[in-house]
Amino acid sequence: MRPERRELTVYFSDIEGFTAVAHEKNPEEVVQVLRAYLQEMTTVVLDSHGHVDKYLGDGLMAFWGAPVALPNQVEAACKAALEMQKRFELNREAWQKQCGRTLLLRAGFDVGPTVVGEMGTLHRVNYTVMGEPVAASYRLESLAKTYGARILVGPRVPELAGPKFAFREVDSIRLNRSSGVEPIFELLGPDADRAELMEWSLAMTAYKDRHFIEARAIFQKLAPTVPLASRYVRRCEKLLQSPPVEPWDGSFND
Amino acid sequence: MRPERRELTVYFSDIEGFTAVAHEKNPEEVVQVLRAYLQEMTTVVLDSHGHVDKYLGDGLMAFWGAPVALPNQVEAACKAALEMQKRFELNREAWQKQCGRTLLLRAGFDVGPTVVGEMGTLHRVNYTVMGEPVAASYRLESLAKTYGARILVGPRVPELAGPKFAFREVDSIRLNRSSGVEPIFELLGPDADRAELMEWSLAMTAYKDRHFIEARAIFQKLAPTVPLASRYVRRCEKLLQSPPVEPWDGSFND
Repeated sequence: MRPERRELTVYFSDIEGFTAVAHEKNPEEVVQVLRAYLQEMTTVVLDSHGHVDKYLGDGLMAFWGAPVALPNQVEAACKAALEMQKRFELNREAWQKQCGRTLLLRAGFDVGPTVVGEMGTLHRVNYTVMGEPVAASYRLESLAKTYGARILVGPRVPELAGPKFAFREVDSIRLNRSSGVEPIFELLGPDADRAELMEWSLAMTAYKDRHFIEARAIFQKLAPTVPLASRYVRRCEKLLQSPPVEPWDGSFND
Repeated sequence: MRPERRELTVYFSDIEGFTAVAHEKNPEEVVQVLRAYLQEMTTVVLDSHGHVDKYLGDGLMAFWGAPVALPNQVEAACKAALEMQKRFELNREAWQKQCGRTLLLRAGFDVGPTVVGEMGTLHRVNYTVMGEPVAASYRLESLAKTYGARILVGPRVPELAGPKFAFREVDSIRLNRSSGVEPIFELLGPDADRAELMEWSLAMTAYKDRHFIEARAIFQKLAPTVPLASRYVRRCEKLLQSPPVEPWDGSFND
């Protein structure tokens, strides 16, 4: 297929703890669990009309929006990402038993302009993608651990996903080289506590408006159920001691 | 091929500036330059009896030591990494003209225990590798920019490469989760100034022995020709003001 410019949703996932398994267990066993896991995830991607770009050890790279155009590729990616977590949880006990380790599936995805098509050499050609969402989704996946999130998504995902999904704003960072500081979000499952999310959102608004006393009070209240809230309590305290330089873009180095 | 445990040398490279090109240029042109570049790099890997694991956009993942066992896989990787830089430089002007951007090839590689073999699903199977050197080499590649290096390598590479190659110790970091703080090195080409490297090595020894005044003097002398030296001058000044806590492992957050 000839390369073309398209807006795509690019996804990366990885099993936390699996590299250690590769060093500890019999190679045959490692590859057996890996195959079962990748097969399960691949099925979800294909069922959602996404494309599996490649495997990277226990990593999976996929995208939605090509070669099949989708009416709402971001919604498809959200559904698939949640379904992959669900399937992972269903198999987790069995896989952990085989691996002798706690395993966690973490993922990141983002939507944006790309070049997609057959790329490669005489040696090897693949239908694959290039562009900012590739680096962004990879970075979101690796940041997921930092924020204690299972699925972390880029700034435009919530608005494009539609009202069916629940998101928690986790921070403001410079995700792409070509853009400024932007919010990133955790995609939550259907069991997300909407009242709690509303409170979180109030706390984040207060925080970004530099009302750190008010923000701290709400984050303190949420801390017992939302682990990330404790980090924001600490941030509020630091920012009360040394207020951010104006104009503040909401970014913070912990 | 059945999965097996093997010590391998895993390599990642990437063109700095190429993602921007993908957004600016005609998709056909982008893929054309990409193909020429990947073909050139792939030829070097194959000529050195390495294995091209995969392409990741403008990224290349390769390894040495499987499926063909090599008498000195680290030496083969060093030679190939330098040859790739050479070929890149030969083509650089033409590629930059097509891309309208400055392009730089950065790479990282490391050696260590892995599981290697056919891995995948019913959907797709690849001969690939898992283990700490995969994450380490990827990280070294992305750190190369930070240190202004073209090729960054892991702690055991210099001793295993043999005396034909020149290395500059650039820092001490925690590269792998399972090990402590270890030195990382820049692999230099045959035109490296050996006298200058000797001075660098003296400065690094003084620095690690906490003789910061002595180290600073040598780094200052080297700063006009070695950009990284300026960073070490600043580090020495900071460490003179607030000495490291004993015992010091040589790591530092700039």
